[in-house]
Amino acid sequence: MGRVTARRPVVRITATHRNRRPDTLAVEEPLEIRLGGRALTVTMRTPGHDVDLVHGFLLAEGIISHREQITTVRYCDGVDDDGANTYNVLDVALAPGVVIPDGAGARNFLTSSACGVCGKESLDQVRTSTRFPLDGRIELSADALSAMPPAMRRRQKVFESTGGLHAAALFTTDGTLLELREDVGRHNAVDKVLGWALSDERVPLTGTVLIVSGRASFELVQKAVMAGVPALGAVSAPSSLAVDLAAESGLTLVGFLRDDSMNVYTGTVL
Amino acid sequence: MGRVTARRPVVRITATHRNRRPDTLAVEEPLEIRLGGRALTVTMRTPGHDVDLVHGFLLAEGIISHREQITTVRYCDGVDDDGANTYNVLDVALAPGVVIPDGAGARNFLTSSACGVCGKESLDQVRTSTRFPLDGRIELSADALSAMPPAMRRRQKVFESTGGLHAAALFTTDGTLLELREDVGRHNAVDKVLGWALSDERVPLTGTVLIVSGRASFELVQKAVMAGVPALGAVSAPSSLAVDLAAESGLTLVGFLRDDSMNVYTGTVL
Repeated sequence: MGRVTARRPVVRITATHRNRRPDTLAVEEPLEIRLGGRALTVTMRTPGHDVDLVHGFLLAEGIISHREQITTVRYCDGVDDDGANTYNVLDVALAPGVVIPDGAGARNFLTSSACGVCGKESLDQVRTSTRFPLDGRIELSADALSAMPPAMRRRQKVFESTGGLHAAALFTTDGTLLELREDVGRHNAVDKVLGWALSDERVPLTGTVLIVSGRASFELVQKAVMAGVPALGAVSAPSSLAVDLAAESGLTLVGFLRDDSMNVYTGTVL
Repeated sequence: MGRVTARRPVVRITATHRNRRPDTLAVEEPLEIRLGGRALTVTMRTPGHDVDLVHGFLLAEGIISHREQITTVRYCDGVDDDGANTYNVLDVALAPGVVIPDGAGARNFLTSSACGVCGKESLDQVRTSTRFPLDGRIELSADALSAMPPAMRRRQKVFESTGGLHAAALFTTDGTLLELREDVGRHNAVDKVLGWALSDERVPLTGTVLIVSGRASFELVQKAVMAGVPALGAVSAPSSLAVDLAAESGLTLVGFLRDDSMNVYTGTVL
């Protein structure tokens, strides 16, 4: 465990020098999530906070909306060729009565979840499946928003050493950082921080802002909506479908959140 | 078709101004890939070069290794609520004798493909499944490599207008750009450019370099290996598993390829 970074030898080449030295990399390993022993999905993630990841993933997929709907999460006791547990398989037991949607495990959850064939269908599907509808009301100032990415960056310890991790952080609207997670996959970083919130009984996340270090895709907007987060701020660009889903869902979506400027795509920033 | 960018209204906020104006966004829409009428995967992609995407995806998944193994690729003629074809479903017919691996369509292809439970298993699986093993030999100079990202950037037309697209480009080792593709998903950009190469009968891509605009993940290394590309250069960091797979596969992997500096993780750069 704690395999968040790894060292590998590297030849560093610049205009004037070449030298061999060790380099610190972000670790990426597969995590298989099983429901009742049956494989649900495999995601390439940075080890650590795997239980948060599972909570956030199942929340985003509409399988659970409260932590008590999961009775146990434990690592499989299987071993690899060297006789060691890889800690890369998590077995989840759901509480009686929790329904696993049709098709769970039968298709790509991360990219197909709630995506019908056309954009319209997929938007309808996500909007109707959230248990925490947003009312579009949030008191959020441009000053508070502008302060969030630098506050997140100061806490990104692994990024500093590897340059290779995405981050997702939850803030209160007045700018207090509640929690941050890092991962090689931005969807994993979001699942981990939303899963933390679910475990801490903070969902729906009324009065909070989710900040992500990269772009805002459809998938990230969907995850925010499913957790009842009223505002999402991204350091980079949103996609068309991210903006459309935010508009349909009453989510305030801000992009290009850099220094003291930003683009407000949906909702209102004071 | 041609829906690569979309316009949405935005409120632009800076320290001194607020104004409402249109903004150009990268389009993101779901693409469902069907094999013989059966859903295989859904990926969130930027429309355009979808047939390339399918070729590259099936190549990377080990389902095909030659363009003649696909007999037809056509958009479904289904329509949405407004009676319009969304061009978001592609039906692929494979030539007789092409075997669809067990589990195709049953799990998340993009994140689980060739990923066993532990890193070691997944590396073995990829290494044995490629039909174009690499011999680790490539004549590649630091000067030629350094010139590739700027050459790619000059051709990234959609990125210039949206700031929201990943790019992947194939170069010859002497620095000639063969082809470039852009997409909201970096794996899609890679699938599209490798699929173009397959359609153009250039696979295995001996004597070429694949350049990607972002980080180098396990998945991207795997795609390069499956297409017989001997070198992968990324503008940002690789993950631990990307380096491990490159080392096992004989792929030259270069990261942090910026200006005239770079990190050579595996292989040799002259």
